[in-house]
Amino acid sequence: MMTFKHTVQEYDGELRKIREQLLFMGAKVEEMIAGGLKALLERDSELAHRVMELDSEVNKLELDIDELCLRVLARRQPVASDLRAVTTVMKMVTDLERIGDLGVNICERVMELNMVPPLKPYMDLPHMAEIAQGMVRSALDAFVNRDVEQAKQVIEKDQTLDSYYGQIFREMLTYMMEDVRNIYRATKIQSVSKYLERIGDHATNLAEMVVFMVKATDIRHKGRLGNAHAPRT
Amino acid sequence: MMTFKHTVQEYDGELRKIREQLLFMGAKVEEMIAGGLKALLERDSELAHRVMELDSEVNKLELDIDELCLRVLARRQPVASDLRAVTTVMKMVTDLERIGDLGVNICERVMELNMVPPLKPYMDLPHMAEIAQGMVRSALDAFVNRDVEQAKQVIEKDQTLDSYYGQIFREMLTYMMEDVRNIYRATKIQSVSKYLERIGDHATNLAEMVVFMVKATDIRHKGRLGNAHAPRT
Repeated sequence: MMTFKHTVQEYDGELRKIREQLLFMGAKVEEMIAGGLKALLERDSELAHRVMELDSEVNKLELDIDELCLRVLARRQPVASDLRAVTTVMKMVTDLERIGDLGVNICERVMELNMVPPLKPYMDLPHMAEIAQGMVRSALDAFVNRDVEQAKQVIEKDQTLDSYYGQIFREMLTYMMEDVRNIYRATKIQSVSKYLERIGDHATNLAEMVVFMVKATDIRHKGRLGNAHAPRT
Repeated sequence: MMTFKHTVQEYDGELRKIREQLLFMGAKVEEMIAGGLKALLERDSELAHRVMELDSEVNKLELDIDELCLRVLARRQPVASDLRAVTTVMKMVTDLERIGDLGVNICERVMELNMVPPLKPYMDLPHMAEIAQGMVRSALDAFVNRDVEQAKQVIEKDQTLDSYYGQIFREMLTYMMEDVRNIYRATKIQSVSKYLERIGDHATNLAEMVVFMVKATDIRHKGRLGNAHAPRT
């Protein structure tokens, strides 16, 4: 009996550790998004450089969390909701790692933009970044609380991000048409906004995984095969 | 003894089924890439439309394969290399599904491009598509054969795709600068080439998963934390 209790406690501890590491990884990529945008607004290439260095920590967290999950699958042989939770985490870290990559891409463009005079005040990009960052956090909260409603709100938010992207994309096209010398900077700004839009896509994927984890059967025949999972531009 | 043998046969059958479905899913997304490009070259919007319809099959395959994997994890409680193979498949289908989404995105741009006179002959895009498609197939072959060398070749190929993308991107910028009326089409062509480049990224992810699956410990301290996993633009 002692041994059984001991084992259950160990198992719980392992699941808790996985959850904690996942949230830690989420906080890191959030930091990358926020830092990248701060570096843009304050034209601080030094900060952009420091943010880029966080990427190797994020990469390492992906590997560590994967290992933790594999160990639990092999040793504890979880079933039902624990099994789904662990395999969901293994999928989620892939998306988080790619959000980290996009954070690096943002910083690359920021460093290029910081070398030339600003094209215009970056009004919408900080909003986009806030939304994207909030989506990542909410998706992870929804995972921890198994909260389908919160996850669905993340999925809905993605439209706002898509609209911002469309708006910035078109605005930058007009700058390009106005003056050939704007093309270089306008293209970079389009890229930053595209990266933020893709971060939103990854957050949406995270949220969809949560919905799917919580109510596996429901979504099989709606969400992902219906409009909710329409491919993204 | 009979029961044990029976169970082993069932288990083998389940693993085979997972592998077959994965390859089937891979063939579908290959078909989407090839079809999308054919629709571009032959200005066949009807074909583009048919290719887009394949996406729901791809989405369904992702769910089906996930279910098969979860069932094997719950019932057979695989360990060691089988465990890694099954969890790897669960990650791979996510990338394959997104390649399908990018196939749809290609078709969307193709339909827009087919509405206006061609900007120039699409020389490099078909090459890019062939490379991207080949990368997807090779990554899946490498998975089936647990072939690290083949997987590494896929990862190397990605540079070729990135160079093509850079080249097309810059070429299109010069078209834009030459004449404002080129901007609309040049932007669409840049997008198609970006989608192909991202398909290459997903194929690279697939290949990295294979390498990681086969030699888990080696790559932990090299590949993914080193240059091989530098974020992509």
